[in-house]
Amino acid sequence: MGNDLTALADYLATNDLDGYLVDAAGEDADQRYVSGFDAPDPYQTLVTEDGVHLLVSGLEYGRAESEAAADTVTNMAAYDAQELRSEYGPREGTLRTIAAFLDTHDVSSIAVPEHCPVGTADGLREHGIDVTVETDDVVGEIRATKTGAEIDAIHETQAANQRAMAVAEGLIASAAVRDGVLYYEGEPLTSERVTTEIEITLLREGCALDETIVACGADAADPHDRGSGPLKAGESIVIDIFPRDKETGYFGDMTRTFVRGEPSDELRRRYDVTYEAFEAALDAIEPGVTGDEVHEIVCDVIEDAGYATLRSDPETDTGYIHGTGHGVGLDIHEGPRLSFGGEELEPGHVVTVEPGIYDPEVGGVRIEDLVVVTEDGYENLTDYPIDVEPEDRR
Amino acid sequence: MGNDLTALADYLATNDLDGYLVDAAGEDADQRYVSGFDAPDPYQTLVTEDGVHLLVSGLEYGRAESEAAADTVTNMAAYDAQELRSEYGPREGTLRTIAAFLDTHDVSSIAVPEHCPVGTADGLREHGIDVTVETDDVVGEIRATKTGAEIDAIHETQAANQRAMAVAEGLIASAAVRDGVLYYEGEPLTSERVTTEIEITLLREGCALDETIVACGADAADPHDRGSGPLKAGESIVIDIFPRDKETGYFGDMTRTFVRGEPSDELRRRYDVTYEAFEAALDAIEPGVTGDEVHEIVCDVIEDAGYATLRSDPETDTGYIHGTGHGVGLDIHEGPRLSFGGEELEPGHVVTVEPGIYDPEVGGVRIEDLVVVTEDGYENLTDYPIDVEPEDRR
Repeated sequence: MGNDLTALADYLATNDLDGYLVDAAGEDADQRYVSGFDAPDPYQTLVTEDGVHLLVSGLEYGRAESEAAADTVTNMAAYDAQELRSEYGPREGTLRTIAAFLDTHDVSSIAVPEHCPVGTADGLREHGIDVTVETDDVVGEIRATKTGAEIDAIHETQAANQRAMAVAEGLIASAAVRDGVLYYEGEPLTSERVTTEIEITLLREGCALDETIVACGADAADPHDRGSGPLKAGESIVIDIFPRDKETGYFGDMTRTFVRGEPSDELRRRYDVTYEAFEAALDAIEPGVTGDEVHEIVCDVIEDAGYATLRSDPETDTGYIHGTGHGVGLDIHEGPRLSFGGEELEPGHVVTVEPGIYDPEVGGVRIEDLVVVTEDGYENLTDYPIDVEPEDRR
Repeated sequence: MGNDLTALADYLATNDLDGYLVDAAGEDADQRYVSGFDAPDPYQTLVTEDGVHLLVSGLEYGRAESEAAADTVTNMAAYDAQELRSEYGPREGTLRTIAAFLDTHDVSSIAVPEHCPVGTADGLREHGIDVTVETDDVVGEIRATKTGAEIDAIHETQAANQRAMAVAEGLIASAAVRDGVLYYEGEPLTSERVTTEIEITLLREGCALDETIVACGADAADPHDRGSGPLKAGESIVIDIFPRDKETGYFGDMTRTFVRGEPSDELRRRYDVTYEAFEAALDAIEPGVTGDEVHEIVCDVIEDAGYATLRSDPETDTGYIHGTGHGVGLDIHEGPRLSFGGEELEPGHVVTVEPGIYDPEVGGVRIEDLVVVTEDGYENLTDYPIDVEPEDRR
C-alpha cells in the first residue's frame, strides 16, 4: 500500500527540510497520490522521514483510518481544533491546529506544492514554520511515471471512454439528414444530446466527467468550445471525452473527428494532414525522445502542409494552436508535456497525442489517442478506429 | 453584466493596494464570480480601480472576449508568453508574463485570495510585487449575498435536484423486499444503482455532480460515506444530492432519509428528533440571527433528547457530528456558516439547514432543505415532502 515516495524523501533530505505538507481536498491529485485518501474537504498530509501522517476532521477520521495509505491518522479534535476555531476564528484556528500537528512531528521546516494555498503558507510562516515552495514538482515527477496498477486503471477508464465514443459515433452515423441538419428520433441531433448520451454511458461505466466536447463547424475550430446546437452534415464534428473513474480516480482521454456526408476537399485535406501528424508523433515516441521533439515533428508536418502553428506564428488563432499532448493520470493534465520545452520521455509515462488544425471558416479537426511509453517505444492504450466517416459500432 | 465588486474596490482603497489578482481556473468560485468567465485551465483576473482585466491563453481568448464580464481581455501572447516559457521554463515564464501584465496596469501591490497558489504569490514577490493575502474573504462575503438572478439560478438547480430525489425515492418505494433486502427489476437495489439513476436524471436536467450520497445502515452513520452495496429494509437510507447546473454554475443541495418497512423505535425516535431540530432551526432563521445561534438551537434540541453533539463532547463520533448548515452558490460550501462562530444572517444569504443524528449501531438520519434569508424570515427554495416512509412520486 502507498506510493513510492523515495524521491520526495530524497528531496527533503537534500534540502534539509523536516517535512512536505499538502493542504488540499482529495480532488487534488498530489493530495490523493501522497495520502492514498479522498475526501471532499481539505485535509493535511505530512510526509517526513518517519512516513506519511494525516490530519483530518472527525467527519473523515473513521474512513481515513481504514482507507488512507498513511502511517498515522490524527483527528483534528486531538488538538482542540473546534475550540481554537471558536476562539480565534476559522482561519487562525485551523492554522494553530496544523502548527500543533507539525510540532507533534518535530517539524519546523516544510516544503509545500506550488498550488498550496498562500493563506496556509503565509499563516504557518507567522507561526514560525519555515515554508519553502517546492518548484521542482517532485511529486508531479513521481506521479508522471506510472506503476503497472496505475496503467491498468488508466487503460480501464480509456476502455469505458471507447464505449462512450461508440455511442456518440453511433448517434451521428445513424442520424437522418434533412436540409443539412442531423436528426435523431425526429428531433435535430444536438451537441447537447450527444453529450448527454456520452455522459450517461460513462456514468453506467462508473466514470464521472466535468465536461465533454461535442463541437461542430465553427465551434469545433475553438479547441475548448464544448459545442452547442444542431449538428450539421458536411461539417466536422470534434468529440473529445476525458472521463475519470470514480473509484480509482484515474482519467482517460480520446478525441475523434467525424463528418456526416461529404466533407469539403479542404476539410478532408486537413483531416489527412492531422492524421499524418498524429502518426508521425506516435512513430517518434520512445524513451529518450523529449516532448519538445515530438511536438516539433508535429509542427513540421502541419507547417509543411501550409498551415500555421504556434511555432511559425505565436499569435495565430488558426492552424495548430495547442501542444501535441500531456500526461494523464490522477489529473487530466499532468507531466510530461508534449509541447515546447517538453521533458524527456521515460517508460511508464502516459501521454496523449492529439494534433489538430483549426479555422472557423473550415471547422476543426483533432485526433487523439492515449499511449504509455515502454522500454522500446510505446503501447497504445486506445483501441478505437480512426475514420472521418462515422459508423454505428454500438 | 458583471457582479457588484464595490466592496472589493473599497478594500483595495482602504488597504492602499493597486489590485486584486485571482490566479485560478473557472471551477474556482471566486474566479468565476469576479471574471464572469469559465475556462478549464488557470487564467488571471485583475481587479483595479479601472475595472476587471483578464489575462488568458490564445486558446481561450476568443471566448473570453465574447463571454467574460471584463473591461479588458489580453492574450498572453501579447507578452510573448510562449517565448518566456521556452527561455525560462513554464513556471518562471508564466510568472514573468503575469508580472508584465501587472506592470501594464501600473500594479505593484496586490491582494490575493487565501487559496491563491503560493507558487504564484511567492514568485510574484520575487519579481518585486507586494503580495498581501486577503484574509477577510471580501469576495466570499460579496458572494454570500445573492442577487435575484443568483437566487433564481439556485432555485432552478434545486428544482432539478427534486426531480432526481423523486427518482431515487420512487426506486426505494417501488422495490420488492426479500429477506430484508430491496430488489428492483429482479436485482438487489444497490446504493450504486440509485446513485446512477440520480445522476442520469440530473444530466438530463443539465446538471453535473461529482458525488452523491445514497448510504444505508452503518454507512449512513458516516455523514461523508457515499454508500455502497444492497439497500436494506428497516434501515435508514440517507440520500444527499448536491448538483451544479452546468450552464449557470450554481449548486442545489438537499437530503432526505427513508426507511422501507418498519424502522426500529430508536431509529424512528431519531428521525423525529432530527425533524424537530430541523424545524427549530428554520423557525430561527431571519436577518440578524447568527449562524452560531441557529446551530446552538439545533444542539439544544438534540442534546435535550439525550444525544451527544460536538458541543457537549467535541470528540464524539456519534450523535450530531457536523454543523447545521452552510451557504450555497457557485461553491457547494460557502459563507455564511450555520455552525460554531457562524456569521450574522442577512437577506440574500442562501443556506442549507441539515441537522442529523448518527450511530453505526442504529444508522444515520439527516434532513436538509435549502433556504434564502428574506427581509422578515426566509423563503424555502426546496419544495419536497419530508417523510421517512418512501412514496413513488415519479
